[in-house]
Amino acid sequence: MNNEFAAELLERVRKSKPLIHNLTNTVVTNFTANGLLSIGASPVMADAVEEAADMAKIAGAVVLNIGTLTAPKVEAMILAGKAANAAGIPVLFDPVGAGATPYRTESAKRILSEVNVDILRGNAGEIAVLCGQSIQVKGVDGGGNADMRALAKEASETLGVTCVITGAEDVVFGKESFSVQNGDPILTTVTGTGCLLGSVIAAFCAVEKNYAKAAAAALAFYGVAAERAVEKSGHNRPGTFAVEFLNELSLTGKEAIMKKAKIEEL
Amino acid sequence: MNNEFAAELLERVRKSKPLIHNLTNTVVTNFTANGLLSIGASPVMADAVEEAADMAKIAGAVVLNIGTLTAPKVEAMILAGKAANAAGIPVLFDPVGAGATPYRTESAKRILSEVNVDILRGNAGEIAVLCGQSIQVKGVDGGGNADMRALAKEASETLGVTCVITGAEDVVFGKESFSVQNGDPILTTVTGTGCLLGSVIAAFCAVEKNYAKAAAAALAFYGVAAERAVEKSGHNRPGTFAVEFLNELSLTGKEAIMKKAKIEEL
Amino acid sequence: MNNEFAAELLERVRKSKPLIHNLTNTVVTNFTANGLLSIGASPVMADAVEEAADMAKIAGAVVLNIGTLTAPKVEAMILAGKAANAAGIPVLFDPVGAGATPYRTESAKRILSEVNVDILRGNAGEIAVLCGQSIQVKGVDGGGNADMRALAKEASETLGVTCVITGAEDVVFGKESFSVQNGDPILTTVTGTGCLLGSVIAAFCAVEKNYAKAAAAALAFYGVAAERAVEKSGHNRPGTFAVEFLNELSLTGKEAIMKKAKIEEL
Repeated sequence: MNNEFAAELLERVRKSKPLIHNLTNTVVTNFTANGLLSIGASPVMADAVEEAADMAKIAGAVVLNIGTLTAPKVEAMILAGKAANAAGIPVLFDPVGAGATPYRTESAKRILSEVNVDILRGNAGEIAVLCGQSIQVKGVDGGGNADMRALAKEASETLGVTCVITGAEDVVFGKESFSVQNGDPILTTVTGTGCLLGSVIAAFCAVEKNYAKAAAAALAFYGVAAERAVEKSGHNRPGTFAVEFLNELSLTGKEAIMKKAKIEEL
Repeated sequence: MNNEFAAELLERVRKSKPLIHNLTNTVVTNFTANGLLSIGASPVMADAVEEAADMAKIAGAVVLNIGTLTAPKVEAMILAGKAANAAGIPVLFDPVGAGATPYRTESAKRILSEVNVDILRGNAGEIAVLCGQSIQVKGVDGGGNADMRALAKEASETLGVTCVITGAEDVVFGKESFSVQNGDPILTTVTGTGCLLGSVIAAFCAVEKNYAKAAAAALAFYGVAAERAVEKSGHNRPGTFAVEFLNELSLTGKEAIMKKAKIEEL
Repeated sequence: MNNEFAAELLERVRKSKPLIHNLTNTVVTNFTANGLLSIGASPVMADAVEEAADMAKIAGAVVLNIGTLTAPKVEAMILAGKAANAAGIPVLFDPVGAGATPYRTESAKRILSEVNVDILRGNAGEIAVLCGQSIQVKGVDGGGNADMRALAKEASETLGVTCVITGAEDVVFGKESFSVQNGDPILTTVTGTGCLLGSVIAAFCAVEKNYAKAAAAALAFYGVAAERAVEKSGHNRPGTFAVEFLNELSLTGKEAIMKKAKIEEL
């Protein structure tokens, strides 16, 4: 995949403004909605069991994120996921904090077994837990130091998903496989940047059936926007960075992606 | 109504600092509270069934917003609404996304039938659904292209409310009727600007019994603040705009309203 | 306690990056997580009854905040609090709005009776209610005009807690007693600054067993950061202040605390 295709996918998102249905955690709802609006997508959040499936049916993609899971929210996620499956709508799952508590790990595994997850996004620790490997996970913003490429490949094959692992290097394994080297460490100082990334990947998957390509393009776009934002905010100013990042999700366009995206086929 | 009266209402809000009780969605809680603090009002959010009514009784106005409704939240809204009714406290209802799913539409209709809603605020699609008209609603930030003035009049008469429909033009129908032409399209790129508007209208209704006048004044003030904010942020910088908008909700005063408010009696 | 020790505690927080488990209200989740990240701590929020205790066991400190309490959240708080007690992990309780409704007051008292709260933080009105005194509380951002030092002493002794009362002057009563005179009134125009303060105090208590000293150091640091932020934002710009405050929670270091902290032993 070349940068031109990544840029084209962004333009498709901006043209078709896909409705992204987010069943996500209470920490990041506002930031996620604003980030999706900034890239030109249309966010919706409806996690009542009574309507989660109905909303999923009219969405372009569905995001399941267990950052602050509760029993009714997990039911709603499964209903939304199954409805999306039935309608051929892509489902992205972000197993936030899997491994941190038994309930979180079990719920993540239950979602994976009841829903046909199309794209699985997490850090190395979370993905390892879902593959039956044990890596220490600390909190929800924790990293991990496994061999990420091998892990992503294993998760993709054993779980039947396009797997996206984010860290110093971002890795995508699915129909095709990519490494993406954009972004900036300041992203880890703003809560919800990982969660919003999941929703941005979902927006790209809403306009491109090759989810591996869609994810790699979204990762590159997201990383380039972060690089441009930190140029304006400087490091160590997480408040200003968050504002500039929302700006750059709106301002970053074809030209910047063409010049700065670092996508490598594996 | 002249601009002087609109400016006077803002000063009344700032002097009396009304307590606004918001039963609202999880996406906009923070932005709503900050916006209300910026205008000088006092926000509270208490949506447990055990206390929603008690909190309503001590509020200056109550806002019911179904953006992320669940069954217990709908019960709490009805309890709060009835308590406010009994105490003569104004109730504003924002039927976010009515029409998008059956559960949302039914819940909105149930609230309207069990609570005496004083002010109904929504976009054209949402209001049309509640009047039994069918306009396509896409997501929760969707618009609509009905004849807004006719729709607002119909909603006001059939539902017995002061009806506020927002869009390119804002329309108020109640004891009196107004068109307000302030604001900026950038508002649609920041989530919760519609929800916060509902809470700001409620704050103006807390200090003025003529809800049509109060709503028109709130719409003009809100729109002027947005116009001033976008002058500072520029277009296409939704992150910066949100920050400047919170600033302007605090900074915009009598003089700016006198000069820039565009309120027309219908 | 001298300013040098306060500065040293901040450096301990930044070095050990304690995991702070926040069972908090839906208005401030995002701001709290971002604030904790800015100071260098690691936030987690998990308020399901199924996992609240498990997450508490691996945390450096636990924060219970009833700003938007519901019955299941109160159960989760009690489970998390008891698990922290059993493991010797400090528990901070913020009885937001106690006194405003009977349910809120009863829930606050129930938490105090079932959990061994280590640090109790609130405004004068909230603390007075929990001591059986009656001071009028208006909303959740309300103040109070009791003799704060006497009230903090009484709460500390009768409830067996380190008591922190915030207002124009901040007061700490526990093993030792302090008055802290940092901060700026603009803090009251941004929602969640009180709630985040609770979490920042908890982070300092995660690295220092003398909770009175830890709280006084946290109050001084937090106040100095606010003073530096308002120098950049100016007064009356709450949007910009919130951004600069998150920046200053990251930028404010040893030197600033040494120079500007105003901690007085009582």
